[in-house]
Amino acid sequence: MKIKVLGTGLTKFGELWDKSLFDLAQEAALEAIGDSHLAVNQIEAVFVANMLSGKLSGQDHLGAVVASNLGLSGASFRIEAACASGGLAVHLAIQSLLSGTYKKVLVVGVEKMTDSPASEITSALMGAGSQTERLAGLTFPGLYALMAKAHMQKYGTTKNELAQVAVKNHYHASLNDKAQFPYEVTEEKVLESSCICTPFTLFDASPVSDGAGALVLSADDEPGSLPAGRQVFISGSAVATDTIDLANRKSLTEITATQTASQKALKQAGVEIKDIKVAEVHDCFTIAEILAMEDLGFCQKGEGGRFIAKGTTKLGGKLPVNTSGGLKACGHPVGATGVKQIVEITNQLRGNLGKRQVKGANVGLTQNVGGTGATVVVHVLQN
Amino acid sequence: MKIKVLGTGLTKFGELWDKSLFDLAQEAALEAIGDSHLAVNQIEAVFVANMLSGKLSGQDHLGAVVASNLGLSGASFRIEAACASGGLAVHLAIQSLLSGTYKKVLVVGVEKMTDSPASEITSALMGAGSQTERLAGLTFPGLYALMAKAHMQKYGTTKNELAQVAVKNHYHASLNDKAQFPYEVTEEKVLESSCICTPFTLFDASPVSDGAGALVLSADDEPGSLPAGRQVFISGSAVATDTIDLANRKSLTEITATQTASQKALKQAGVEIKDIKVAEVHDCFTIAEILAMEDLGFCQKGEGGRFIAKGTTKLGGKLPVNTSGGLKACGHPVGATGVKQIVEITNQLRGNLGKRQVKGANVGLTQNVGGTGATVVVHVLQN
Repeated sequence: MKIKVLGTGLTKFGELWDKSLFDLAQEAALEAIGDSHLAVNQIEAVFVANMLSGKLSGQDHLGAVVASNLGLSGASFRIEAACASGGLAVHLAIQSLLSGTYKKVLVVGVEKMTDSPASEITSALMGAGSQTERLAGLTFPGLYALMAKAHMQKYGTTKNELAQVAVKNHYHASLNDKAQFPYEVTEEKVLESSCICTPFTLFDASPVSDGAGALVLSADDEPGSLPAGRQVFISGSAVATDTIDLANRKSLTEITATQTASQKALKQAGVEIKDIKVAEVHDCFTIAEILAMEDLGFCQKGEGGRFIAKGTTKLGGKLPVNTSGGLKACGHPVGATGVKQIVEITNQLRGNLGKRQVKGANVGLTQNVGGTGATVVVHVLQN
Repeated sequence: MKIKVLGTGLTKFGELWDKSLFDLAQEAALEAIGDSHLAVNQIEAVFVANMLSGKLSGQDHLGAVVASNLGLSGASFRIEAACASGGLAVHLAIQSLLSGTYKKVLVVGVEKMTDSPASEITSALMGAGSQTERLAGLTFPGLYALMAKAHMQKYGTTKNELAQVAVKNHYHASLNDKAQFPYEVTEEKVLESSCICTPFTLFDASPVSDGAGALVLSADDEPGSLPAGRQVFISGSAVATDTIDLANRKSLTEITATQTASQKALKQAGVEIKDIKVAEVHDCFTIAEILAMEDLGFCQKGEGGRFIAKGTTKLGGKLPVNTSGGLKACGHPVGATGVKQIVEITNQLRGNLGKRQVKGANVGLTQNVGGTGATVVVHVLQN
């Protein structure tokens, strides 16, 4: 499998009160199309990833809205799988290219969250979980806290190790002017901030964000090659599903859908996990990045906290993870996140990320999670 | 293009207060899988079409929910494009089969609407339109009424001709025990019912409904052939987009996305419009079926009302349309509709529809519309 990434676009992430859902989608889309050097009307299909616009902005049918605003009359789609919507939209866009039906497609991930009251957002986000979880009064901090507590109990993971995920990702975000929180934090700051749900403090959680990301993709057999240094391909794309209810999993300390999807994507790409030089993973809470390290196979099960705390995944380390700042510090506009991860890895592989560039990055991976791991999408990118 | 339809499933449509969103999806899915003679775990990917579950049932992430309830761990997706969600999910499922990524997939279209208050449903449905239309206080009866008035003015279409669409579709529904309104109505009854928006009476509109439909699809090169009489293939699948705002169209009396999508789908299938023996079209309001006849090319522009009124599209006529009863009388659970249309045509081509069987049906077409025509999906099916 080989899909060309022709262009990327990304808005600033944050509380963007001066921009609407539609403005954000349009800005990212036009940037990606411009970057691809295609004319807008060469785009044959638009895949829009979004979770919440129906509830928070009153707008469904977002594929047609985005296509319409761009003046396009080809096909348009909206794809949703909670926080994995972005990765899933890329996966389906790839299917449409591999099928030969479309030759050049646009993927836009967008979310507008900060105009709504906090209680409404929290309630809306619980649509990503199960009915049982909603009826039990659980929220996502609570669900991930259950996973964190189980990991601490079983493997001795500490609150300091959780905090180190936030410290690293804030450091990376400090080098990214698109990030919502482009500043560093200390371990003390993380540990002393308000407790939101034991064992998490505020700094263990990703924020509520507005933002959009976009990609222009084409089939590999399309004529026209990109200039040297801009040749980036998606070589693996896989999705796996686990139970929607966290309580029905065989274990609270692993996300099996990550294991399944990553093994499949790596096999498609013909690479091994040790070949990955840079990765963006789904750190909606600090524990999620620890689980991702283990379930992707970057380290042994139970070792994720120590693996991160010793600096392996910090810029300058052997395997920089979440150089964008991750969901934690770059921000988490849920529909945009999976697309943003691929934008970041594409730009790492193009070698144009300046202060946060990973030297020699030629194979990268993204992992995008929906809910507590009911949906996981993994992509592999290569030069 | 050739995709095998291995199985179909359909719940009763109506006010199903004893069944949840999850019950409906599961019932249709298991029926389709049973009909396909596959084991549940042979399904590699699940495509769920749904518009409103986030707003009306608090449940997003519905791909994972449906997969999880079936015990599946492959890929899962939720696809949304308002009332065209069902057709679009089938289109994307087909892409995933043509790409070779998946070999056997399940499509489930489901909607649970009648548990919510009417005002909430009306407001939720306006997510299918544009922000401008919502801010202007328009609703879908109002938008389609504008199109009907324009058609009446330009082409002399009458309220009696509009009523004849309802009369025909109620007659068809009277032969379908899955229909929400399985009874006949007279033209007088339609014309004398309450006015909901000039020129529409209550009987010009499709109802609010609960229901689900499902399809099991496979690539054509999969081993194992279906028994004679059950060989049904999807041979054309195309999507087109128009402006989300009705006001931005060049004409109120045509849906150009229908024209574009149908020409593309017919070309893929290698058939002409005159080869179609049976069709299911998107009659959310009576005018929509008239527009569909014209834009698909079954009759000349402006002639749709008379074409239907003279009985051509009634069972026994030359081209029976909406033998299920259509959205108008079979019901319109929005996410399910596009899937139900393909279920109906598949069963027409299998020849097992009893009293509403179209004799000699070997080529059929479905047309599924989102909003006022911003999204249109057309499928062609053949024996």
